[in-house]
Amino acid sequence: MSKESRTQPRYIFGRHAAKEALAAGVPIEKVYLSEKYAQQLLPALNEKDIPSEIVSNRKLESFAKNASHQGVLLEVAPYAYASLQQILDAAKGENNALILVLDHIEDEGNLGAIARTAEVVGASGLIIPNARAAGIGAGAYKASAGAVAHLPIAKVPNLAQTLDALKEEGFWIVGATEHAQDTLWEAPLNGRIALVMGSEKQGIAPLVLKHCDLLTKLPQVGSIESLNVAQAATVFAYEWMRQSKIKELR
Amino acid sequence: MSKESRTQPRYIFGRHAAKEALAAGVPIEKVYLSEKYAQQLLPALNEKDIPSEIVSNRKLESFAKNASHQGVLLEVAPYAYASLQQILDAAKGENNALILVLDHIEDEGNLGAIARTAEVVGASGLIIPNARAAGIGAGAYKASAGAVAHLPIAKVPNLAQTLDALKEEGFWIVGATEHAQDTLWEAPLNGRIALVMGSEKQGIAPLVLKHCDLLTKLPQVGSIESLNVAQAATVFAYEWMRQSKIKELR
Repeated sequence: MSKESRTQPRYIFGRHAAKEALAAGVPIEKVYLSEKYAQQLLPALNEKDIPSEIVSNRKLESFAKNASHQGVLLEVAPYAYASLQQILDAAKGENNALILVLDHIEDEGNLGAIARTAEVVGASGLIIPNARAAGIGAGAYKASAGAVAHLPIAKVPNLAQTLDALKEEGFWIVGATEHAQDTLWEAPLNGRIALVMGSEKQGIAPLVLKHCDLLTKLPQVGSIESLNVAQAATVFAYEWMRQSKIKELR
Repeated sequence: MSKESRTQPRYIFGRHAAKEALAAGVPIEKVYLSEKYAQQLLPALNEKDIPSEIVSNRKLESFAKNASHQGVLLEVAPYAYASLQQILDAAKGENNALILVLDHIEDEGNLGAIARTAEVVGASGLIIPNARAAGIGAGAYKASAGAVAHLPIAKVPNLAQTLDALKEEGFWIVGATEHAQDTLWEAPLNGRIALVMGSEKQGIAPLVLKHCDLLTKLPQVGSIESLNVAQAATVFAYEWMRQSKIKELR
């Protein structure tokens, strides 16, 4: 794991958020506590083998800046991103393999939900851009129900080049966009598929669209605009499973 | 609309939450403002024709109890639930009709996301229990992207009896549960389908399960437990569309 493949450490402030993160199993590097709150929380932390340090309120305030820390601050362990090569290795030799490629998803909850889907359908991995996109922090960890710990997730500098690399490995690049002609049921989604999902507001960027081999959409009959991107990704991922006739536990 | 088919008024406190709710178009009955904050917000409220009242900080505090109101409090309009009969009327004479039945979903975000899916696939309506389940408040409105305003949603006192009523109207009752033998691709999901989704923690209750005509599941190959209920409902709803050959705008 290279240095740039790690996110910056992330902090979680406040008692409610801290309890929620600990209950969800978010990987915690260290807990900083005020003396007053330590008595309450230390036994549980020691039981889970989570390192902790009692610090002054002044130090907590310097960490938290303007946020309300309520005497507790969690330092989330940096997420260990995979390399693109690790994802390709996971798919090597598989006639059916799915890689999800997210074109600048902004919401960590959506990112986590998509990771959850990817893990459940047995995808080989998830690819996200280096910059201007949500990364794996506590929010994504929680929304993924822990799936991010089991799924290789790679950050890449250039999505278009990455799609070309996937093509060379025998992947069909499928872009999910409302502007497609064919619905997911008409499109060939079996085999080695890299599924590209666009951002919440802008969809797939024009340059990335050009690198897709085919485009597909979800049919919609209602009056509101569309599904949430995580729900849409789930339907596409299951259609890949259906067309690839994957029904059993691997 | 009967009296009991309305939720209690709901309040949203604080500037950030208020701005978010207004931007999302959550239907607001009235806005209560401190004098200090009024200058900032009143023009936007008047433009949107939202009634407002300038009140004392003491009054805001009495509404907000221990919450931090920051000088603004929104009263969300009560959601106008449909009757079961209205949902049945919407499905009348349709060879293909989908009704979603939620067995005590607890999270408003999940409820809203499922409503969004139901609206997008053209479902006739959504049925939820009267008690011990999330209702349509600001959270569900936002998660639904406004779909709850377009979709008939009924609250019923007894799910098992309601399923019997749906059977009499020619619906097949399909329960989504991991304990099913058949995957969604093997189960007949076309035609008039009432899809029952269980709660986040407990799934479908035993009595409700007994009232299902058939059970079906999503295949899973990963190592985490399962999908979020809203993602799962979306995959089932699209499978109903696929098997019913619904591809076009109605």
